[in-house]
Amino acid sequence: MTELSRIGEFGLIERIARILPGAPTVIEGIGDDCAVVRVFDRLMLLSCDMFVEDVHFRRAYASPQDIGWKAATSALSDVAAMGGTPLFSLVSLACPVTTDSAYVEGLYHGLTDATGQAGAIVVGGDTTMSPAGIFIDVTVVGEVIGNRYLSRRGAQSGDLLGVTGRLGLSAAGLWALDNGKNAPVLVMAHHRPTARISEGLWLSGCPHVKSMIDISDGFVQDAGHLTEPGRLGVEIEPDTLPVDPNLRQFCLEYELDPLDFMLTGGEDYELAFAIRPEDTDDCLGMFRREFRTPIHIAGRFTSAWRGVRVAGRPTSPGGYEHFR
Amino acid sequence: MTELSRIGEFGLIERIARILPGAPTVIEGIGDDCAVVRVFDRLMLLSCDMFVEDVHFRRAYASPQDIGWKAATSALSDVAAMGGTPLFSLVSLACPVTTDSAYVEGLYHGLTDATGQAGAIVVGGDTTMSPAGIFIDVTVVGEVIGNRYLSRRGAQSGDLLGVTGRLGLSAAGLWALDNGKNAPVLVMAHHRPTARISEGLWLSGCPHVKSMIDISDGFVQDAGHLTEPGRLGVEIEPDTLPVDPNLRQFCLEYELDPLDFMLTGGEDYELAFAIRPEDTDDCLGMFRREFRTPIHIAGRFTSAWRGVRVAGRPTSPGGYEHFR
Repeated sequence: MTELSRIGEFGLIERIARILPGAPTVIEGIGDDCAVVRVFDRLMLLSCDMFVEDVHFRRAYASPQDIGWKAATSALSDVAAMGGTPLFSLVSLACPVTTDSAYVEGLYHGLTDATGQAGAIVVGGDTTMSPAGIFIDVTVVGEVIGNRYLSRRGAQSGDLLGVTGRLGLSAAGLWALDNGKNAPVLVMAHHRPTARISEGLWLSGCPHVKSMIDISDGFVQDAGHLTEPGRLGVEIEPDTLPVDPNLRQFCLEYELDPLDFMLTGGEDYELAFAIRPEDTDDCLGMFRREFRTPIHIAGRFTSAWRGVRVAGRPTSPGGYEHFR
Repeated sequence: MTELSRIGEFGLIERIARILPGAPTVIEGIGDDCAVVRVFDRLMLLSCDMFVEDVHFRRAYASPQDIGWKAATSALSDVAAMGGTPLFSLVSLACPVTTDSAYVEGLYHGLTDATGQAGAIVVGGDTTMSPAGIFIDVTVVGEVIGNRYLSRRGAQSGDLLGVTGRLGLSAAGLWALDNGKNAPVLVMAHHRPTARISEGLWLSGCPHVKSMIDISDGFVQDAGHLTEPGRLGVEIEPDTLPVDPNLRQFCLEYELDPLDFMLTGGEDYELAFAIRPEDTDDCLGMFRREFRTPIHIAGRFTSAWRGVRVAGRPTSPGGYEHFR
């Protein structure tokens, strides 16, 4: 007997990966943000994301529209992380028979709003009874333009670690909700994240960007996934990361360290990527002319050691992992 | 406040359908077995099916391999019901942290076995924690050959109602499990149904077959879906349905009526379809030369009244409906 709590989410994924068969039409299987498959001689992205009451969300903290929005965004963000464009999504919903129909309709409004904003469309799904708790599984089907997509693999020693947006707001928003503090901007960041679809597509078209991931489990942990664990190390220089003024003010008020939220908070749905150092200035300059989304270099990959270091100090695997 | 228990699964689906937007690329949206979407100028099928512990399965009744097999078959059968070919599937799994890893691996073995037998491949998914109970959501992506697929719509007055296979075995198997009776053939039918992929593809290519559905909720209820509720009626003649010898023997032994299982039992995953009467003999003859799966005519559509009648008697909506 080996409980999941002992091997953790990543241990389980490794074991599942051994069971799943490969096939010539499966370009990328389990282990990345999306599966990449060949259909009609084109590449498609497939991804699903299960959103569970009292694990991923609390009904007391958020409206059903917020919960639906975030469930959809979490799945759409996986397509953004590959540089793909989401086309269609499906929603499977399990909820107790005592649930108010208006509540479920609210969930669907949030789901369709977020999906529509990302340029995709909810085409159907399944509804079923749950003995306890609401379970929302969102599947997204996306396309890859010109067969170019970014996986988590591809970083080399000397490459720089880039990241979009401002980190930590979502986690600080959750802290505010947990502790009954008033922080509307942070709570909004927690409830209504944006999948970086256009930014991901742009970065995947930039020839100097080599690999990418979305930050769902925390910057340190997700940056670690870009090291092809065991092959490279990545040094994060936290001083290079700008602290959002709202986050700074909030942390001052409650004597918190903004870096805790920024480095291990999770649910930012920003993009982290490896980029060739020579071309970084050009690429970031063009990105900034194209988007209002911030973009920064926050670290460097190395072959001298393995894992993730923050300001020179090795980290234990931080961030969120299911079953632990 | 309108509890889901009051409006039922079909009431909820109607309300959700009003929320989901349409689009030119969405050929069939919510309300059929699969969504039909246009991708790269071809038609694709998308379907998902949530399988919930203590709603769809009990851990005490079945091995994890059985449970995984059936969760996959249930989703694959939706593609069969449209006459499509499944290509890829994704699995989202939520389970408690105390679950044995070997149990989860068993689920995946069942999932990949059933998917492989249907000619498709599991390419990835999501694993997450559940506060209570195991939730398995299977999404299937399928293709349609030659843009011909069968929806639930299309029956006309005078068309005949056809059905594949022998009905009622799965429901009788569940009764045996619920009542601690020994009935290995029936229990096997309950645990290891087969999605009628090849049969569905063949029937969709038969120009005289007009509409199709898979029997997941019971023959009466699913045949009712072929009447485009409110437009037609369908008369089921139960005497024309052969009773499986194992089912007959079992029902004799325990003083049960085999027709109860055959008409409202559900989870047969056989195919029911509307067919033009003139060409029925030819079509069934060819089908029988092609497949060992039985096929029969079991009723007739009419415009004289609405709903489903069995041997002349109107039925109340039988079969399984979530939230009721």
